[in-house]
Amino acid sequence: MKVGFIGLGHMGAGMAMNLLKAGHELTIYNRTRSKARNLLDMGAHAAETVADACQGDAVFTMLADDLAVESVVYGDQGMLARLRKGAIHISASTISIALSERLTGDHAAATQRFIAAPVFGRPEMAERGHLFVVAAGAADAIERVGGLLEAVGQRTFVVSDEPKAANLVKLSGNFLIASVIESLGEALALVAKGGVDKRQYLDFLTSTLFSATVYKTYGDLIVQEKFEPAGFAVPLGHKDIRLVLAAGEELRVPMPLANILRDRLLNLLAHGQERLDWSALGGLPAQDAGAG
Amino acid sequence: MKVGFIGLGHMGAGMAMNLLKAGHELTIYNRTRSKARNLLDMGAHAAETVADACQGDAVFTMLADDLAVESVVYGDQGMLARLRKGAIHISASTISIALSERLTGDHAAATQRFIAAPVFGRPEMAERGHLFVVAAGAADAIERVGGLLEAVGQRTFVVSDEPKAANLVKLSGNFLIASVIESLGEALALVAKGGVDKRQYLDFLTSTLFSATVYKTYGDLIVQEKFEPAGFAVPLGHKDIRLVLAAGEELRVPMPLANILRDRLLNLLAHGQERLDWSALGGLPAQDAGAG
Amino acid sequence: MKVGFIGLGHMGAGMAMNLLKAGHELTIYNRTRSKARNLLDMGAHAAETVADACQGDAVFTMLADDLAVESVVYGDQGMLARLRKGAIHISASTISIALSERLTGDHAAATQRFIAAPVFGRPEMAERGHLFVVAAGAADAIERVGGLLEAVGQRTFVVSDEPKAANLVKLSGNFLIASVIESLGEALALVAKGGVDKRQYLDFLTSTLFSATVYKTYGDLIVQEKFEPAGFAVPLGHKDIRLVLAAGEELRVPMPLANILRDRLLNLLAHGQERLDWSALGGLPAQDAGAG
Amino acid sequence: MKVGFIGLGHMGAGMAMNLLKAGHELTIYNRTRSKARNLLDMGAHAAETVADACQGDAVFTMLADDLAVESVVYGDQGMLARLRKGAIHISASTISIALSERLTGDHAAATQRFIAAPVFGRPEMAERGHLFVVAAGAADAIERVGGLLEAVGQRTFVVSDEPKAANLVKLSGNFLIASVIESLGEALALVAKGGVDKRQYLDFLTSTLFSATVYKTYGDLIVQEKFEPAGFAVPLGHKDIRLVLAAGEELRVPMPLANILRDRLLNLLAHGQERLDWSALGGLPAQDAGAG
Repeated sequence: MKVGFIGLGHMGAGMAMNLLKAGHELTIYNRTRSKARNLLDMGAHAAETVADACQGDAVFTMLADDLAVESVVYGDQGMLARLRKGAIHISASTISIALSERLTGDHAAATQRFIAAPVFGRPEMAERGHLFVVAAGAADAIERVGGLLEAVGQRTFVVSDEPKAANLVKLSGNFLIASVIESLGEALALVAKGGVDKRQYLDFLTSTLFSATVYKTYGDLIVQEKFEPAGFAVPLGHKDIRLVLAAGEELRVPMPLANILRDRLLNLLAHGQERLDWSALGGLPAQDAGAG
Repeated sequence: MKVGFIGLGHMGAGMAMNLLKAGHELTIYNRTRSKARNLLDMGAHAAETVADACQGDAVFTMLADDLAVESVVYGDQGMLARLRKGAIHISASTISIALSERLTGDHAAATQRFIAAPVFGRPEMAERGHLFVVAAGAADAIERVGGLLEAVGQRTFVVSDEPKAANLVKLSGNFLIASVIESLGEALALVAKGGVDKRQYLDFLTSTLFSATVYKTYGDLIVQEKFEPAGFAVPLGHKDIRLVLAAGEELRVPMPLANILRDRLLNLLAHGQERLDWSALGGLPAQDAGAG
Repeated sequence: MKVGFIGLGHMGAGMAMNLLKAGHELTIYNRTRSKARNLLDMGAHAAETVADACQGDAVFTMLADDLAVESVVYGDQGMLARLRKGAIHISASTISIALSERLTGDHAAATQRFIAAPVFGRPEMAERGHLFVVAAGAADAIERVGGLLEAVGQRTFVVSDEPKAANLVKLSGNFLIASVIESLGEALALVAKGGVDKRQYLDFLTSTLFSATVYKTYGDLIVQEKFEPAGFAVPLGHKDIRLVLAAGEELRVPMPLANILRDRLLNLLAHGQERLDWSALGGLPAQDAGAG
Repeated sequence: MKVGFIGLGHMGAGMAMNLLKAGHELTIYNRTRSKARNLLDMGAHAAETVADACQGDAVFTMLADDLAVESVVYGDQGMLARLRKGAIHISASTISIALSERLTGDHAAATQRFIAAPVFGRPEMAERGHLFVVAAGAADAIERVGGLLEAVGQRTFVVSDEPKAANLVKLSGNFLIASVIESLGEALALVAKGGVDKRQYLDFLTSTLFSATVYKTYGDLIVQEKFEPAGFAVPLGHKDIRLVLAAGEELRVPMPLANILRDRLLNLLAHGQERLDWSALGGLPAQDAGAG
């Protein structure tokens, strides 16, 4: 399939590579060109502009936030103007419900298709094609790009025919991960001040009731207080929790635990900790307890 | 080994049975006699009084709360007065840090031994001897009763030579479980109001990032809104979160997430929901969102 | 002075009347014409369009939210296009910090002036010219319209030469009022369940340490559970607390108490209580306590 | 009237002095003797023991916490053993609902009377006899000591015939004061980061909607960051908010704002700030915002 790919960050680069490996004809675009070298060696075409990446049957966007997506979609040379009729915009970015709704409407008006297909997994999973893909949109559109989604992920979950539902699932998933970090942070601060060894405590948890990888991964970072380099940086985490709360606002769902998470991340930003991994929020309970 | 067992509720009955199966000579005591029938048939001796259960080398207590433990330990016919020198009180109940410290001191003063060995697992795990045991206390005392702990659990984790550390681990573990319930409750309320099918959403979560049993078990109860019969009732959950906060108070550890959990359980108690399973707290976010 | 006035709701109508009484030549505009009758009888001119209201030296806007202000400022016939050079836009609405910044820049670019002059007080205070005016913007601009501000309020507080500062003060003031409501709501729920008469309790508070009018006014509404008709409706209260949190977000200031307030108001919206006064949030603690 | 007075701290000393001034025959007792000098010069009798202070018709206790009250009430030489039949224990301390209930029962069993009469006001108000007294208990008992209550306060509010109701009112009053501190702390952190002068902001608030003394007093301390010397120290504030939450626990009233207050005070204690005034909790929002 002839595919465009816009956004070659930690996640996007791995996804693009797996599309190439699966035999698709890929045209890649990134604001900063240098990142593409490796992919070009593997046979990808370089797009000079967003418009150049819009020639095929489908275009992935994998960008940092709403603003970045808006900047490639709108404008004279944007996707909306340049994608041909019937072509599919596959939005893999973690964006707001509001933008997802707007893109759904605008692409439809331009007789293009829009599906949301955000992904779960850290960069090393993207590289190995092991992401979990949550897709939503018109069934036939999702079916047409099924091969592409299979190339980037180990499994695709179709959750709705409304694209925004996939974005909601993605956002709520990040909320659940951050909740794990907060709960571990509080529990570790408590037992440590009570004289229990943190490492031993974590090993106990993760070998019994809390065996999910997310407990191991984040528990380990908190116990080691190893918040650099960031796998997922504080500003991104803050953005996502903000979007969760914005969704809750629109849907009229109070989320007190999300409030705590937002305040933790805001606290980190207020102290200039933008470069840290968002798991650093799990270190704040110990600080509040005078043990940070 | 000659062992006493006090407290034959859902959990205690299963534990006692496994001690019998492992060949120990067991004397059992329960405030309400009827529960013992099955165990007596298997060869347990019936104690008429607490004192009768204190003749052996070790005595388990598996009771509902601090008050129940205090009532069998203190007084003329209590364990403190009747346990012989060097005998070991194995406290498997979920009790406060404060009581654990007090028992440690009082048993030592009476030249008896005290270890805390609270357990993780639901009643069916107790019956199969599959509990996780968290033990703390003097190393030689724990070693002496190692066979007993092995009989009731699939694995024993020794976390400290101070008994109260095991109680802290137990309480913090229940806090982590309740945190899972709250986070799932908020996420489910959000996605459901956004048009996502709750069952499908939960299946997605538990087949990807949140594969731990605790997410399946509690997620399922919340999705089904099936809060009766209670595996672990609201008043017990409330008691434990209260003890977590009391420990945080004593150790000077603010725990904002625990506050939310306490208020949820208090809300249920205020509405006469004592008989529900504590997972009912996960149904409150939907209520706050007008969808309960 | 020749003045325009846009927005004749509960507050705006009273303010406009006092401008007329003070002898200013007033041209009024409202989306729904009927509200103007009384003012026209007093000598105000009727503007057919926003542009018609932009002929004078200064124009007040007193509108419900950001969107309403944007709709009269932007566009071909908007204030930005039609206000003459050097004319002053006096924004009395409670709007976001972000919009205030944007208006500051856009009016400056159009060689117009912009000051923010939000007001504190309920409709009956507006009618009597007893509002408190919080003004911010260039000193000479504020001075030029000093007579107008004096006409609508009992006192003007100049807080900064940056307009947005006045909006921040207004928003934070509403946050403080809502905090009073929440604290009274919790205290009343507590003492009432403890057998204390609510009315007597409130009388005690307001005749001793909490003599400020805000405690009397809101305490009375909570005690009587009299949340209709709304002096300031739930959606407006929700909007303001949302803007407080948005300001906190931008300025990196975690505000846990504001989170509680937002969730209370969201709860009311989720239950279809849009028509209630925002003091209804003070009735929710009693509901959570099973006594609502 | 022949009166005993136990507890001569900042508050008690002033109260005792006003009882003397009103012509009552006063016998005073304090654990540390030195504090009494001034009162003895004014004609008070010195009690060597608690029992010595129990000879009269009524005895005030004005002590730091539950423990201190228990230590003078119980035991062979305590008030319960030594107060004569019909004598009245006037408990002015801020104690728990639970202890108040227990004292009510125990004094009744000993055919003595018990009333709770906690007071509102800072030490300088105690000295001038300007306290507000909240009294509860049997009507005839309150009437009999009416002259005493008038001597220490500017006004007496009788709220119930159950003593614990007065304690609940006192605790809830302290909760309301701490809520003012928190709300001011958040608002000041917000506007200060937004470029508004804190002093000017506070002056605006207290000369308009928030004219109650409590806003002036505490706002001033927060703006100046002047948390020493303590008028009411962090450990006392923490104790009171803890008792509020304990009352909420018993009465089944979730109080999310009280949770925030408790965590703030716990944070201060965790950082060794015991000597600070409890208004220091109002400085924490600025710290969380990176501006502390």
